[in-house]
Amino acid sequence: MEFKDLIAYQQAFERYLEKQQLVQGYPSSLYEPIGYIMALGGKRIRPVLTLLAHKLFDHQYARALPQAMAVETFHNFSLMHDDIMDQATTRRGGPSVHHQFGINAAILSGDAMLIMAYQYLVRDLTQDQLISALSLFSSTALDICRGQQQDMDFEKKDLVSIEDYLAMIRNKTAVLLGLSMSLGAIVGGADAGSVVAMKQCGESAGMAFQIHDDYLDAFGQTNKTGKKRGGDIIQNKKTFLWLMACNLGGERIREELISISHNQNYNSEAKVNRVLEVYRSLDIESQCQNRQRQYTDEAINALNQVNAPDSAKQQIFDLMALLLARNH
Amino acid sequence: MEFKDLIAYQQAFERYLEKQQLVQGYPSSLYEPIGYIMALGGKRIRPVLTLLAHKLFDHQYARALPQAMAVETFHNFSLMHDDIMDQATTRRGGPSVHHQFGINAAILSGDAMLIMAYQYLVRDLTQDQLISALSLFSSTALDICRGQQQDMDFEKKDLVSIEDYLAMIRNKTAVLLGLSMSLGAIVGGADAGSVVAMKQCGESAGMAFQIHDDYLDAFGQTNKTGKKRGGDIIQNKKTFLWLMACNLGGERIREELISISHNQNYNSEAKVNRVLEVYRSLDIESQCQNRQRQYTDEAINALNQVNAPDSAKQQIFDLMALLLARNH
Repeated sequence: MEFKDLIAYQQAFERYLEKQQLVQGYPSSLYEPIGYIMALGGKRIRPVLTLLAHKLFDHQYARALPQAMAVETFHNFSLMHDDIMDQATTRRGGPSVHHQFGINAAILSGDAMLIMAYQYLVRDLTQDQLISALSLFSSTALDICRGQQQDMDFEKKDLVSIEDYLAMIRNKTAVLLGLSMSLGAIVGGADAGSVVAMKQCGESAGMAFQIHDDYLDAFGQTNKTGKKRGGDIIQNKKTFLWLMACNLGGERIREELISISHNQNYNSEAKVNRVLEVYRSLDIESQCQNRQRQYTDEAINALNQVNAPDSAKQQIFDLMALLLARNH
Repeated sequence: MEFKDLIAYQQAFERYLEKQQLVQGYPSSLYEPIGYIMALGGKRIRPVLTLLAHKLFDHQYARALPQAMAVETFHNFSLMHDDIMDQATTRRGGPSVHHQFGINAAILSGDAMLIMAYQYLVRDLTQDQLISALSLFSSTALDICRGQQQDMDFEKKDLVSIEDYLAMIRNKTAVLLGLSMSLGAIVGGADAGSVVAMKQCGESAGMAFQIHDDYLDAFGQTNKTGKKRGGDIIQNKKTFLWLMACNLGGERIREELISISHNQNYNSEAKVNRVLEVYRSLDIESQCQNRQRQYTDEAINALNQVNAPDSAKQQIFDLMALLLARNH
């Protein structure tokens, strides 16, 4: 996908978002936090995927704007509530909502956004589309709650299996990309088989992106963004890399990694250096690349099964390639 | 309505609720708080209203059980989140969810319940019913968020107008009764005019109940429940009575009431006694009764406009009378 295409879809979404005038709602104390988080931006990958998926089946991609808005509103609702639970004070370079407006505002405005997401979801759908869109949306939304709970449960454990970790990231992040794409397909009038394949494509791509994210934190080029290398290591996050190292390194390495994660007096730099040394000695980089490739192949195979012109599919392949080529 | 009728509907709902096996979900840390709050019970007024409303149009009231479950699940979601915001440590005699399971669990399990409410809402509906049920449910759910926000905003103010107070309780509590009744009507196949009338009936009844609640806190018989008289006064709540007294009492009384509410050293008993004295001197009791009667009449008139047999309507009148005859 050429970069200008991505920008065109992003802009179409931003224009639609602006027209909603979210901050105009009453009482303003409820709507201000909603307008605030929605305006923080981000790459709008999920709504763009909905529009691109829709375009496989129907040229007028603007028809899927309400459903693109539904996934982006849902995504930002979950960020708003997750930030409270994770006690995150920043979000996309600004203060997180609960840090800026208080916890009560972040709870209640988040609730309102979840309801608004349903309002956008059902807008302008035919009755057949309505039933599949609702069923898919609700079951995915519940999976995402499950994923966040699994993530919080994992934090209390020393170690989790790779299988449990993959199940967690599938729920917490991958299924929302699957939903974004399958909703676009539903609105575009895709056949049931293609809707399932689009869901699979988005979900597998989501798994690849998450593993890529884990990888970048340890091995990405940090000079481009000024982001500190090894943030996940400093925060003792159980990433794919860390769990893989525990798995492959044998008992001695596993015990060392767990002990490092418990040791609050460890110097951050020394900690990052030692863990990266372990990753390198076990060639965890290749493990990431292999797993990422496997999920990317799954996504490509799924998209190839969709009944749509190859030229339209190319845009989705290009966007996936762009996201997986990030090195920072 | 005879008491045994109410019990029969309550039991039908309880049986349906038990069959859902809410606590069996995975991960249990997400579903346990849901099972906990749903099992705390209460009178199940909202789901019973859905079943009774449905019975006006269709004898098989069990058909509306999923929608009855939707309103009760939504109601408990909002209690779960409101208790966090209001820092309430108890709920129906037990610990509140966030007090028992932690704030994060109460946020996330509440989110899951809101999603589950939508899943129950759309279950077994025809496509026409689906569209009206969804539109009504989402707009009511947003109104309820607005009401909770208005309530929190009011706490920061010395005084609000009676009009603003009534708008707040309409959003925060009355519209959910309107939704409960209109959903039952929709599932029962009511005509559009009857659906609107049922909504109006539930909403007006909800206003009457809330004013009755405010009244009971000051003038109810406390020996029957062991509940302390004047809890609202001790907590400096802006109730219908307090605002009416500020309105009718002139500047001197208004200033005294505001000053009492600010004075943290005031002895609780002395505070309750003085405020009750003010209420009595202004005959606030009659103000409550008049307003309650006005809303009850509105509810009755609305129900009379519904195209349904009088015998079925009588059950709803009886339930309303039962709830408004509470003196504790």
